[in-house]
Amino acid sequence: MRTRHKPWADDYLKENKHIVELEPVSKHKRWKDNFSEAQPIHLEIGTGKGQFICGMAKQYPNVNFVGIEVVKSIIVSAVQKVKDEDVNNVKLINEDAKDLREMFSENEIDHIYLNFSDPWPKNRHEKRRLTYSTFLEQYKTILKENGKVTLKTDNQSLFEYSLVSFSNFGMVLEEVTLDLHEIEDSTNVMTEYEEKFSAKGQPIYRCVARFV
Amino acid sequence: MRTRHKPWADDYLKENKHIVELEPVSKHKRWKDNFSEAQPIHLEIGTGKGQFICGMAKQYPNVNFVGIEVVKSIIVSAVQKVKDEDVNNVKLINEDAKDLREMFSENEIDHIYLNFSDPWPKNRHEKRRLTYSTFLEQYKTILKENGKVTLKTDNQSLFEYSLVSFSNFGMVLEEVTLDLHEIEDSTNVMTEYEEKFSAKGQPIYRCVARFV
Ligand SMILES: C[S@@+](CC[C@H](N)C(=O)[O-])C[C@H]1O[C@@H](n2cnc3c(N)ncnc32)[C@H](O)[C@@H]1O
Ligand SMILES: C[S@@+](CC[C@H](N)C(=O)[O-])C[C@H]1O[C@@H](n2cnc3c(N)ncnc32)[C@H](O)[C@@H]1O
Repeated sequence: MRTRHKPWADDYLKENKHIVELEPVSKHKRWKDNFSEAQPIHLEIGTGKGQFICGMAKQYPNVNFVGIEVVKSIIVSAVQKVKDEDVNNVKLINEDAKDLREMFSENEIDHIYLNFSDPWPKNRHEKRRLTYSTFLEQYKTILKENGKVTLKTDNQSLFEYSLVSFSNFGMVLEEVTLDLHEIEDSTNVMTEYEEKFSAKGQPIYRCVARFV
Repeated sequence: MRTRHKPWADDYLKENKHIVELEPVSKHKRWKDNFSEAQPIHLEIGTGKGQFICGMAKQYPNVNFVGIEVVKSIIVSAVQKVKDEDVNNVKLINEDAKDLREMFSENEIDHIYLNFSDPWPKNRHEKRRLTYSTFLEQYKTILKENGKVTLKTDNQSLFEYSLVSFSNFGMVLEEVTLDLHEIEDSTNVMTEYEEKFSAKGQPIYRCVARFV
């Protein structure tokens, strides 16, 4: 995701600590104490500029949302969106999602969203894909029993890879759709990337996989 | 598959009983006694005119192939092909594949191929799809431990449905490809339908699922 350098980003994030956690985040934080309402927590990894998480937060006021985004100059846009849209059930984390078990307690999360995750197409970068087995192990730990992962992507190879990876990990596929915008799903909240790629006519893939 | 009425089909099939079994087939038949060589048996369901099974039989002489096709006027073309191409590791069955456990013994088969199976798009016909759970139960019985099912289709909905059905049955997806002809797979043997649809530029889907 291209963004201009934003020299003011550091100060801006510090001013908005009520919305965004700056690294290092510790799991001793107890996320539920962090929200005004005690309700299920859904996690998005690679939140980008926050369109999805803000849209979901408005659509599901009875859910708390946490978004992780590693790039500072990108997450500032998500912070701005949370403020502009005045949603109080979103918290953001400016950190790399590599050590989720440090950031969340066991069974703390109900659902994980991976939206247009970086595909890392080279075989030697397989371990960086957010659907690689070591990530799935982390997801399994922080998710409640039978917790789910929803993946949306325009990337055919990442999608094929992820279905096989979920399945080999022992997860069950609850839904697979090879052209999300062809079906009527009025609950679907578009991400920035999703808008861009579907405007170009590319199919959007989605799957929902459940840990068992 | 459209075919002309073939009044000579009955006689032709009876003349070729060394190649084609006519119903009812009993599992007491012991398939391995039916081939000149004792080697693994692969099964294709919905063989059509036999292009795939004959191509596979030539490519894998160390495998015995059984093909089931319910329509008489179609299976005659497959019988002809087996004769024309002079392959001796193919047997055909002119029967509906609905009672496979009557036709095969437990653990008799190594691999099952479903090629361009009828999609039965209406929800109320779900049970007729060859990847519906009752079919998977039968496949599991007649397949060896860790036996595999390979599905190829051009039909997006059947493919999506089948991935979910395999997964819910507890099968593991070993391979998923959303555009078979984009990848280099020199071992792929095309079926009649595959040639037709890929010539039109439609993507061909393939997955391999393993019982565990
Ligand atoms: C291709 S963008 C998609 C953004 C947004 N989800 C969308 O669909 O429009 C991927 C985003 O994930 C972020 N990202 C990638 N790996 C990450 C990681 N390990 N931890 C946190 N964020 C990550 C990137 O910085 C980038 O903003
Ligand atoms: C769409 S055609 C595909 C033919 C061939 N496999 C191909 O890919 O070119 C499906 C074939 O499966 C056969 N078929 C469908 N259901 C069957 C069943 N339950 N038992 C046996 N054959 C069946 C049909 O008669 C038809 O020839």
